[in-house]
Amino acid sequence: MTNPTRPEAWNQFLAIAPYTGLLNMEAVSAADAGCVIALPYREDLIGDPDRGVLHGGAITALMDVCFGFSVYFRIREFVPMATLDLRIDYLRPAQPHSKVYASASCYKLTQELAFVRGHAYDEDPEQPISTGVGIFILTSGKPAFTEQKVVSA
Amino acid sequence: MTNPTRPEAWNQFLAIAPYTGLLNMEAVSAADAGCVIALPYREDLIGDPDRGVLHGGAITALMDVCFGFSVYFRIREFVPMATLDLRIDYLRPAQPHSKVYASASCYKLTQELAFVRGHAYDEDPEQPISTGVGIFILTSGKPAFTEQKVVSA
Amino acid sequence: MTNPTRPEAWNQFLAIAPYTGLLNMEAVSAADAGCVIALPYREDLIGDPDRGVLHGGAITALMDVCFGFSVYFRIREFVPMATLDLRIDYLRPAQPHSKVYASASCYKLTQELAFVRGHAYDEDPEQPISTGVGIFILTSGKPAFTEQKVVSA
Amino acid sequence: MTNPTRPEAWNQFLAIAPYTGLLNMEAVSAADAGCVIALPYREDLIGDPDRGVLHGGAITALMDVCFGFSVYFRIREFVPMATLDLRIDYLRPAQPHSKVYASASCYKLTQELAFVRGHAYDEDPEQPISTGVGIFILTSGKPAFTEQKVVSA
Repeated sequence: MTNPTRPEAWNQFLAIAPYTGLLNMEAVSAADAGCVIALPYREDLIGDPDRGVLHGGAITALMDVCFGFSVYFRIREFVPMATLDLRIDYLRPAQPHSKVYASASCYKLTQELAFVRGHAYDEDPEQPISTGVGIFILTSGKPAFTEQKVVSA
Repeated sequence: MTNPTRPEAWNQFLAIAPYTGLLNMEAVSAADAGCVIALPYREDLIGDPDRGVLHGGAITALMDVCFGFSVYFRIREFVPMATLDLRIDYLRPAQPHSKVYASASCYKLTQELAFVRGHAYDEDPEQPISTGVGIFILTSGKPAFTEQKVVSA
Repeated sequence: MTNPTRPEAWNQFLAIAPYTGLLNMEAVSAADAGCVIALPYREDLIGDPDRGVLHGGAITALMDVCFGFSVYFRIREFVPMATLDLRIDYLRPAQPHSKVYASASCYKLTQELAFVRGHAYDEDPEQPISTGVGIFILTSGKPAFTEQKVVSA
Repeated sequence: MTNPTRPEAWNQFLAIAPYTGLLNMEAVSAADAGCVIALPYREDLIGDPDRGVLHGGAITALMDVCFGFSVYFRIREFVPMATLDLRIDYLRPAQPHSKVYASASCYKLTQELAFVRGHAYDEDPEQPISTGVGIFILTSGKPAFTEQKVVSA
């Protein structure tokens, strides 16, 4: 990542993962305070056809991806890592036919763990659709979840 | 829902929401202990192209949908409701090229809230990929998140 | 609560609940941005005798109480309510022999739910010991958790 | 821990941490399916004096302690560890004047992480007061939360 503050560099990365490509996620901005990724509105991402709003699962996926990017942005390197856990609170439905944004920042980093918080919104970042917190595990090339072998009765 | 224990009835419902249709989610089974929904493996749902495993966000979406269905199954009716919050713990990556299943049950129901837990797995339900808990709010036709108007200093 | 911004008024309330009295919690400040409650260091609240730091459970209790106060402070009234759920992330141990503070704000309020976030710290609010989010349910005098009676197969 | 299945051995350990001593926690049982710890009812642990029920923060502390024990019990050794995060869902208030129990099991163990779930109840384990999930980090003698030093722009 030669210049990770340029969203163009991120868009290349977003295109690498087929799932983020399927959802057409777009890097919007990156700064010390965090990074922003957008999920354009599309008919096939709707959850409730009567109201025409995006499915909660699509917004959750957007937040998960944005949370991961906030870790890359803090480290300024694409390190191997995995989502360890995630909590999302849903405050209100998205506006019908609206593009949704996720904003996240990595507020604490240790040798092995990254703590992240963020939110999703449509028009006004101060009126979030959802808020979330999560922990990522930095795996340094080794598998994140090697089974403990010493366990025995 | 004339016979909600028949997965065929659910598949019709899964097809109503474009997003679950986009992800090709399939109802598998329903019993008092909970319900199971599958997410077939597809190249465009991959998160990590090197390993060929499904994106965590797709698995999270699957769990969210399955959690909601477990509430319908307990009530035996399609009531208006919304995800209030969700916590997912990711225990290990999915197997490459594997279909993923989510299983969930609504273990507590009040007039307004439904408490759900479940997990996702590929081959063996005893070796989960992820576990999760969540709360849904039953909205009885009225909007779930009406702003409090009485707030003032 | 004639003037809820005065910590003295809160201390009276903190003294009403025997458990917060047992832990000697003290109201520190209240402002639109949130409220702060302190837990003075005491030998019998230690979790790890070798290091002399407060038990995580005591810090969790402090955060739970402070979260509830942030809801009262936003509504400016002591309404009946109950903690619905809580997530705490522990970033580091408390400093040995340190008083611990919790700070919280209610960032979203609906007719029935209050969404809160906050953190605990010892010396520097910018170096949290733990962060947390939670949801409270406003019960308006009726029981929060009436069992759903309509459930039947 | 010569015979960790004997609650007597645990009670000694519970007495080591002043905070668990202050709350009079008692080891009840331990088996492969998990372990149980009790919090005897006491006037000074009350949260709501009108109803005479234990404070939610005391129940959360009980669950936190019991969760940690379930990890020791699975490993069969007292390894250094720290709570990384905790989510508690509160389903109903405790019964007035009731002793409260927490039951927990460590359902997944890796080299560095322990995933735990459990619940609290008073009379009937099938009617939980609260349910919870958490992750503990096994620190192997080294500090759990060493600050990342390599972070730089």
